[in-house]
Amino acid sequence: MSQLYFIRHGIAADHTGFEHDFDRPLTDQGIAKTSAIAQRFAALGLCFDRILTSPLVRAQQTAELLRVAGLCGVIEEFGALAPGGDVEALVSWWSGLSPVQAGETIAIVGHQPDLGQWAEWLLWGQTMEKLIVKKAGVIGMEVSPLGLACGMCELFWLTPPRLLL
Amino acid sequence: MSQLYFIRHGIAADHTGFEHDFDRPLTDQGIAKTSAIAQRFAALGLCFDRILTSPLVRAQQTAELLRVAGLCGVIEEFGALAPGGDVEALVSWWSGLSPVQAGETIAIVGHQPDLGQWAEWLLWGQTMEKLIVKKAGVIGMEVSPLGLACGMCELFWLTPPRLLL
Repeated sequence: MSQLYFIRHGIAADHTGFEHDFDRPLTDQGIAKTSAIAQRFAALGLCFDRILTSPLVRAQQTAELLRVAGLCGVIEEFGALAPGGDVEALVSWWSGLSPVQAGETIAIVGHQPDLGQWAEWLLWGQTMEKLIVKKAGVIGMEVSPLGLACGMCELFWLTPPRLLL
Repeated sequence: MSQLYFIRHGIAADHTGFEHDFDRPLTDQGIAKTSAIAQRFAALGLCFDRILTSPLVRAQQTAELLRVAGLCGVIEEFGALAPGGDVEALVSWWSGLSPVQAGETIAIVGHQPDLGQWAEWLLWGQTMEKLIVKKAGVIGMEVSPLGLACGMCELFWLTPPRLLL
């Protein structure tokens, strides 16, 4: 059974000075806190075979901090992880993996409310917005050996940074 | 908004030597690990106004380890937390609290699969057994200001001990 982690990007700059939401970077505090979380993940023994990230700057930076902490060597941009993307794109991508790849541990870096909604859809088959996912927070799910599909995952972890650091 | 924590008892002795399931105590490993979790809770700043516990020995011992770690001074036995109890008993008990008491942070010590099922009912209004709750694991929920009822809570924390210690 493979594991799937959803990680929300860290604290980002507000819109002042940035014409496009796409370009907003992590703040210094966001970098420090996200880096501390990444190091805590490593200390807990987490290791990802690959990271899929939203193309937005704040998500790319978050993925890079996970890589720097030694959690993963492979980062791939995944367009559907931009705000408002469709979880079906992830399911479709997953169905194209080889059996070995489908057994990998994969981390996904993205945005709220999408990550919480995607997780609920994978867990309970519907979206009710009952998962509180803080910035740099994480969701950990077990993926069914039958594959990634609606209502087929189980939740083993949800934590805000304050209850991890 | 008050917070409600569900905490599963620690690792207990198997049935050998115990005529009644009720009497099975925590093992030495169970005591050590549950105590470490309790101390970690305290280090994270958790503090409960009261603990409701299942009457079974392994749950009572777990509640006592939380008390010893300084998390709470008040432990109350709650019969419906024995295996197979009904979440409606908790909702009924909650509805009898004063407004001040209903704003308290309450921890509940009990058993699987009940804790996971109760949590799902409080969060999503139905039970699908999608929460993995390990021994000495914890579920943290925000309770709606409207009260404790079916589908009215939000999940902010779920963690096994291995991802906390």
